[in-house]
Amino acid sequence: MWTVARGRKGRRPGSPDTQDEILQAASREFAAKGYDGATIRGVAAAAGVDPALVLHYFGTKEQLFIATLHVPVNPAAMVRGVLDDAQPGEIGERLISTMLGVWDATAHRSPLVAVLRSVAGEGPVADTVRQFIEHSIIAAFAQRLPGPEPQLRAVLIGSQVIGLLVGRYVVRLEPLASTDPARLAAIYGPTIDRYAYGSLPPDGA
Amino acid sequence: MWTVARGRKGRRPGSPDTQDEILQAASREFAAKGYDGATIRGVAAAAGVDPALVLHYFGTKEQLFIATLHVPVNPAAMVRGVLDDAQPGEIGERLISTMLGVWDATAHRSPLVAVLRSVAGEGPVADTVRQFIEHSIIAAFAQRLPGPEPQLRAVLIGSQVIGLLVGRYVVRLEPLASTDPARLAAIYGPTIDRYAYGSLPPDGA
Repeated sequence: MWTVARGRKGRRPGSPDTQDEILQAASREFAAKGYDGATIRGVAAAAGVDPALVLHYFGTKEQLFIATLHVPVNPAAMVRGVLDDAQPGEIGERLISTMLGVWDATAHRSPLVAVLRSVAGEGPVADTVRQFIEHSIIAAFAQRLPGPEPQLRAVLIGSQVIGLLVGRYVVRLEPLASTDPARLAAIYGPTIDRYAYGSLPPDGA
Repeated sequence: MWTVARGRKGRRPGSPDTQDEILQAASREFAAKGYDGATIRGVAAAAGVDPALVLHYFGTKEQLFIATLHVPVNPAAMVRGVLDDAQPGEIGERLISTMLGVWDATAHRSPLVAVLRSVAGEGPVADTVRQFIEHSIIAAFAQRLPGPEPQLRAVLIGSQVIGLLVGRYVVRLEPLASTDPARLAAIYGPTIDRYAYGSLPPDGA
């Protein structure tokens, strides 16, 4: 029977059903414990599989979380890639053009928009997304910026990126929503570079 | 009897109950028809009062809408005030410091945070807030910026302001949430001024 074949006993360890069950268990774990609190081991236990199988399918906790969001790209990995490849002092234009390239090319934008909504939203999923942004994406910037106050610089960049994405894809403010991505990269690039590498006015300014 | 006194027949036209009924009618009208579609006349009819009384209490549709949000300040009026008073070319620092001054001084920030959440949210209230932002706040900028493409400049400014407010007051990203407002005004000011008055790269850049 089909329902029996989907049950624990009839399941093959490598079947798509197993991946799906791991993802469902992961969604529950992230919602219950947050991004920081959830573990590969806990997800594996909840799905009734070996932790090695979770790692085999999803690689890392970060990638497992991205998979639960159903978004086509890992934004933290994208940030690390751009910052590791770009010339120091000139990450802004490349960051924005890479980011808009992915978003504009995504035919089904609703999972991405759902993640953006949850940045400002309420509830356990929203809290988990914010922890991921803070401890994975913002951290990826902060670890790679050479100047003083890397954490402040990282959140300044985050504030412009969040505003751009919300404005273009959620609120769809015109002409922000329809402007050519290369032009937006040229406009926003210097802002990002100033936050990343420029001199910041001292405290008590 | 108190309950009779609150009814339509027992009500004095100038009582606080009347204001409250107008506000409730306005909330329903804005949710049903959006910011653009709602009218003072329609609100008055729904509340069973003369339109002149609505104007007497609330002044304009914009102010009536602000009253339904229960926020302590009209952001569109604040923007007009800053842009009309400041030196052209130097609005950024003053805009950010005025804005953070109001938000930081607001003891009960939950209505403001609720409005911010709805910028990225779903449903009729969110749609109405977005119409207000686009046709009242963004328009206030666009009408006052002297250079070419004022509408694009206005939404660029909007994207940085939204990201700053969401990051500081909703997500509470650190150290964005705890940094001195004067310092943030000095950091974000040049960004706003570049968007408002700087040269923008041409289309097809």
